Amino acid sequence: MRLDGRNQDELREVTIVTDYLKHPEGSVLITVGDTKVICSASVEDRVPPFMRGEGKGWITAEYSMLPRATAQRTVREASKGKISGRTMEIQRLIGRSLRAVVDLEKLGERTLWIDCDVIQADGGTRTASITGSYVAINLALGKLFNDGVLDTYPVTDFLAATSVGIVPEHGVILDLNYEEDSAAKVDMNVVMTSSRHFVELQGTGEESTFSKEELNLLLEYAEKGILELIEKQKAALGEWTAKIINNRDQREEGCS
Amino acid sequence: MRLDGRNQDELREVTIVTDYLKHPEGSVLITVGDTKVICSASVEDRVPPFMRGEGKGWITAEYSMLPRATAQRTVREASKGKISGRTMEIQRLIGRSLRAVVDLEKLGERTLWIDCDVIQADGGTRTASITGSYVAINLALGKLFNDGVLDTYPVTDFLAATSVGIVPEHGVILDLNYEEDSAAKVDMNVVMTSSRHFVELQGTGEESTFSKEELNLLLEYAEKGILELIEKQKAALGEWTAKIINNRDQREEGCS
Amino acid sequence: MRLDGRNQDELREVTIVTDYLKHPEGSVLITVGDTKVICSASVEDRVPPFMRGEGKGWITAEYSMLPRATAQRTVREASKGKISGRTMEIQRLIGRSLRAVVDLEKLGERTLWIDCDVIQADGGTRTASITGSYVAINLALGKLFNDGVLDTYPVTDFLAATSVGIVPEHGVILDLNYEEDSAAKVDMNVVMTSSRHFVELQGTGEESTFSKEELNLLLEYAEKGILELIEKQKAALGEWTAKIINNRDQREEGCS
Amino acid sequence: MRLDGRNQDELREVTIVTDYLKHPEGSVLITVGDTKVICSASVEDRVPPFMRGEGKGWITAEYSMLPRATAQRTVREASKGKISGRTMEIQRLIGRSLRAVVDLEKLGERTLWIDCDVIQADGGTRTASITGSYVAINLALGKLFNDGVLDTYPVTDFLAATSVGIVPEHGVILDLNYEEDSAAKVDMNVVMTSSRHFVELQGTGEESTFSKEELNLLLEYAEKGILELIEKQKAALGEWTAKIINNRDQREEGCS
Amino acid sequence: MRLDGRNQDELREVTIVTDYLKHPEGSVLITVGDTKVICSASVEDRVPPFMRGEGKGWITAEYSMLPRATAQRTVREASKGKISGRTMEIQRLIGRSLRAVVDLEKLGERTLWIDCDVIQADGGTRTASITGSYVAINLALGKLFNDGVLDTYPVTDFLAATSVGIVPEHGVILDLNYEEDSAAKVDMNVVMTSSRHFVELQGTGEESTFSKEELNLLLEYAEKGILELIEKQKAALGEWTAKIINNRDQREEGCS
Amino acid sequence: MRLDGRNQDELREVTIVTDYLKHPEGSVLITVGDTKVICSASVEDRVPPFMRGEGKGWITAEYSMLPRATAQRTVREASKGKISGRTMEIQRLIGRSLRAVVDLEKLGERTLWIDCDVIQADGGTRTASITGSYVAINLALGKLFNDGVLDTYPVTDFLAATSVGIVPEHGVILDLNYEEDSAAKVDMNVVMTSSRHFVELQGTGEESTFSKEELNLLLEYAEKGILELIEKQKAALGEWTAKIINNRDQREEGCS
Repeated sequence: MRLDGRNQDELREVTIVTDYLKHPEGSVLITVGDTKVICSASVEDRVPPFMRGEGKGWITAEYSMLPRATAQRTVREASKGKISGRTMEIQRLIGRSLRAVVDLEKLGERTLWIDCDVIQADGGTRTASITGSYVAINLALGKLFNDGVLDTYPVTDFLAATSVGIVPEHGVILDLNYEEDSAAKVDMNVVMTSSRHFVELQGTGEESTFSKEELNLLLEYAEKGILELIEKQKAALGEWTAKIINNRDQREEGCS
Repeated sequence: MRLDGRNQDELREVTIVTDYLKHPEGSVLITVGDTKVICSASVEDRVPPFMRGEGKGWITAEYSMLPRATAQRTVREASKGKISGRTMEIQRLIGRSLRAVVDLEKLGERTLWIDCDVIQADGGTRTASITGSYVAINLALGKLFNDGVLDTYPVTDFLAATSVGIVPEHGVILDLNYEEDSAAKVDMNVVMTSSRHFVELQGTGEESTFSKEELNLLLEYAEKGILELIEKQKAALGEWTAKIINNRDQREEGCS
Repeated sequence: MRLDGRNQDELREVTIVTDYLKHPEGSVLITVGDTKVICSASVEDRVPPFMRGEGKGWITAEYSMLPRATAQRTVREASKGKISGRTMEIQRLIGRSLRAVVDLEKLGERTLWIDCDVIQADGGTRTASITGSYVAINLALGKLFNDGVLDTYPVTDFLAATSVGIVPEHGVILDLNYEEDSAAKVDMNVVMTSSRHFVELQGTGEESTFSKEELNLLLEYAEKGILELIEKQKAALGEWTAKIINNRDQREEGCS
Repeated sequence: MRLDGRNQDELREVTIVTDYLKHPEGSVLITVGDTKVICSASVEDRVPPFMRGEGKGWITAEYSMLPRATAQRTVREASKGKISGRTMEIQRLIGRSLRAVVDLEKLGERTLWIDCDVIQADGGTRTASITGSYVAINLALGKLFNDGVLDTYPVTDFLAATSVGIVPEHGVILDLNYEEDSAAKVDMNVVMTSSRHFVELQGTGEESTFSKEELNLLLEYAEKGILELIEKQKAALGEWTAKIINNRDQREEGCS
Repeated sequence: MRLDGRNQDELREVTIVTDYLKHPEGSVLITVGDTKVICSASVEDRVPPFMRGEGKGWITAEYSMLPRATAQRTVREASKGKISGRTMEIQRLIGRSLRAVVDLEKLGERTLWIDCDVIQADGGTRTASITGSYVAINLALGKLFNDGVLDTYPVTDFLAATSVGIVPEHGVILDLNYEEDSAAKVDMNVVMTSSRHFVELQGTGEESTFSKEELNLLLEYAEKGILELIEKQKAALGEWTAKIINNRDQREEGCS
Repeated sequence: MRLDGRNQDELREVTIVTDYLKHPEGSVLITVGDTKVICSASVEDRVPPFMRGEGKGWITAEYSMLPRATAQRTVREASKGKISGRTMEIQRLIGRSLRAVVDLEKLGERTLWIDCDVIQADGGTRTASITGSYVAINLALGKLFNDGVLDTYPVTDFLAATSVGIVPEHGVILDLNYEEDSAAKVDMNVVMTSSRHFVELQGTGEESTFSKEELNLLLEYAEKGILELIEKQKAALGEWTAKIINNRDQREEGCS
């Protein structure tokens, strides 16, 4: 049993509050244990210069932590005048992940800006950001669809993310909190669709390595967790859930 | 009557949630109408280089807005790599204001870091930040006092802030929301103690001017609003309220 | 009596040298005691992007100190690669102040760039910058008017600025030099027109507070000083003085 | 057959020139097809502040491309004044990878600086950087060992990296060149030891996803390529090869 | 005799490898003793904004050193976020020098980007960069000429650069290596054409001075070295050598 | 005859106002025609980190232009957040030049900070800065000497600078104003001592070249101008003039 009483393959408690903020087209507050992230999705009616005229949309993400999201106050990146490598990696990961389940051509020449602001951090902030942002973009895209701006609903599958790792004391575990993450010798983030397809897989030995067998168990736990997270998303998304399932099934039929 | 039905000298609804975050020594979520700010206070056991060895403490503040705190997404200052003049002005104002009601010698060689993060903006974010931060630093200082780190409670008076302004349609009004603020020809921020003493007074004509008579009415409304805000602070602060009243009264007796 | 022999409500000696530099459309060297500032006004035939197409002009200001304007050498902001919060506050203050007495529609789609470079500092550099810049923009606008670029002279009133403060030893005093400013417990900058209307009012308790009665005396001294400074401006401005008086009186009649 | 005639599981031609530069403690020029990277290892007799006093060493990496390493000239990051997210990700990846096969305690309080400068780019620059840097650090550590600075040789296993991917036309392939990489719908970088343990696994669907079966084939090809690269490293390392094999075998025995 | 056995007026061994890189329009690896620089020339079909519409081309240069080009690792300018004064001086010098022997009108509205990346440094990196870049731009311009993009070959003369200096032990010497450069009390860089005309002359006393007589000897040695370097360039340039000689002779006849 | 009526080898009118500012240890306003530069010298009682413990002093310079020193307003480098290559070159030139005539060992572990702020620019700002700064550092060093901080006066010779150039219409000319400088095909800055020794020689063909004969005439004119400037310095320096002559003569005797 883990310090907080969970089984090795058990997620922390997850809640998703939709329309958390007044101004953004889509926004949620996602809570995974003590990790809390505000995810908002903003629609801009143009794409970055390198994509103009291609008739396709774009999704880009920014990530930040409040200075006291963490146990020790961290210096603001705005004060340092530059964004850390860690933040850049996370921003790129969130954007890439979401682009894999949105048909960018159906989005048209629009940019979805994702903002993930970690209010409180206790491990797993990047995966909570992805899971929460997925809901936020559906709320924003839902508005565009309802307003007749989009003809077809462009989201092609559900998508969620979680972390798995290997901790000396407990072996392979799912959904590491900060304390577990600090002790882990292997740390892996998995982003997956409801079709059990991988979007991202990032496994890292921290001054350590891992075997093919350990990899397989890590992926098994990750899949279990992600499918549970997707159930939470479905509950939060209401009417859009059926649209996404429909898109997914049509696409899969098209593949077979 | 104003657009939201308020009288000219009426505050918006104000709530102060204490201990809003897990990690900081003191934290609140303050809500003033649709303006929402997370204020946290962190204690660091040293002071900046220019103050070392003087036996005095320091209070410094940082202020930021989530990109979608506003109706239009604003670019993150971390992404731009520099902090705007507006942000710097606000940060300096918050720090100066709080330093006026904390006996820095009694604080000892410690720094209080105030972080004000605006989650949702609808006018008056800087004054809400001051009013909320005042509560957050008392929570943090209360912990230091309870832990025996401080011998004397160092806060010498209550302190809150509000905005007043002159709007063409309504004349002088209290606690402007964003729409009113955008229309205002005169904009004034007032920071005041429960002793009705000014700490900061910043009045600005926006391509306009104001007379001595208008100034007097602006200050009258500001005083009314600030005394009401201080009642909210007292309710939020529990046991520390009596300590602050006591400090204030002793100091005032000492003056007379 | 103050250290330099002045009465509490007495300005330092003020001189304004017009057309101090060869290149700018308008320039002055203003001397207030030992404080010396070169103020220049440059005309650019376009406005910043956010104002294009509105048919209005803009006024913006930059402020800097030579490294040895001060007793201790200060590091150049260019060397540090960023502008301090203090400089930003001053720049915004100068720009806002001057915009209050120029009819931006009559200016047309032009930008007036104000550059205030402090050659020697002895307190009151921001207020000397405003008082001097007011003259510099009139010299520049006068040239535009003489050249037939402007149909109407766009300046609507005189405008000057001074500082007042409360110093433990002397109480309320006018026009603080550096030594007095360092000792002041309350510091206030006032920007006012010849019609005795406020444009800016920025009062700050330095780890201290001030009462309504103190505020009234501060404002009384400030008004006295500003009206004297405006007499200096009138003497420096020659032919434009009558134009400004005329504009002011017409506008005031229009108001009554 | 691929465009350059290779089989799907075939590496490009690989050469490793040791002691390529005069000044660094260790340096190589690694060539993988048309990709050419200079890797150098520098020894500094101290560790970064956050590690001081722990008796452990550190390995950190920097990565850069000459502007004309690429078909289109890319702007220098020094000229832009900031390092891109891509560069940061690669730098962090190289450092983490090498730290997994060096016993940092045996290194003592020293920093190994890895510099990877891409002279010519044709896909796979980050994996070539890791494979080449591994040799460079052995050359540098070998010098320290020969000079008696290190008592024990601190490298615990061989380590190399390659890329695998899924390209619409060819399915799963090993060691993608630039043209293949641009067409890939799945891109994966694998870092592995001679014991067939993973150090890093980074798989990404580019607006696409991949299944468990595809993952398994990707990993099979990667393993084949990495074991071949390690043979190249052994040939380049001369006397140090036996030391590393010995360290690895001793450690594995200790595990069993 | 100097440490490396050279006479006072003797160059180090010089080699120029042409077409060193795959991607750039022109590239060389120049070796002067132990100094090695990759020079590449890239053609861009437009000029910087300040030159548009003038029908003339532009040549601009960037210079950088690998961190371990030097005996001690130097911090990357990309990591520091700014370019040093030394680098800027060198970049400007290279660009200016080459512009003196290219007829920018015949180049048309194109920019030649020169990239000089020092792989290994042992004194004289800026002069080696100029000598090598001269060859690289001829290779790039040759391609443009062969492709019919240019009607006339625009290079008007040969151009090479070397350093001379005064070292306490040896007096005036040619082509200083790093050790000699460190000891020099006078350091001079000379850029000259095959017509023995100066393009750049930069002589500096390092906490020292030099007389007219010393200047004359410095220039004599520089001329000797530069004419030898130009012979190396001729050998490297093949068919373009005759074109340049022809251009030079025609221009000189035109002058007489 | 030149546009302003000067002969080809004639300087513009030069004045040097000493002790121009109140705060610096040494300061002058130097005027060369319409070029006006404030030069100040500040003494700091320590040297930069790379020189500590060597018992030697250091001289460093910073240079800046007011935005409206020029005919067109130039953007402040502080606003751009970085210093241009031109400014860096000039700063390095001023510092190097002055270090050549100050015995840094006699200065002790102190830094002289030179600040050259161009109030009005009409060509030759860098050479006016050197000529003026030379006087400013003597004023500062004179104070140190008078205060008994220095045992020996550390300045070993006079030093001044001027520009010479080749202008199509007039051939070789001395002390170019802005209009002449813009037309020049060769531009040369010369820094020289009263012993007619060179300290710096920087000649540049602007898309042009120059011959040995032209060089000789340029240097002849430069020498004439510099010796005249040194007479102005002697007049400005009063009592220190004799000390410098004495130091120079003793040193020269020591050399013979």
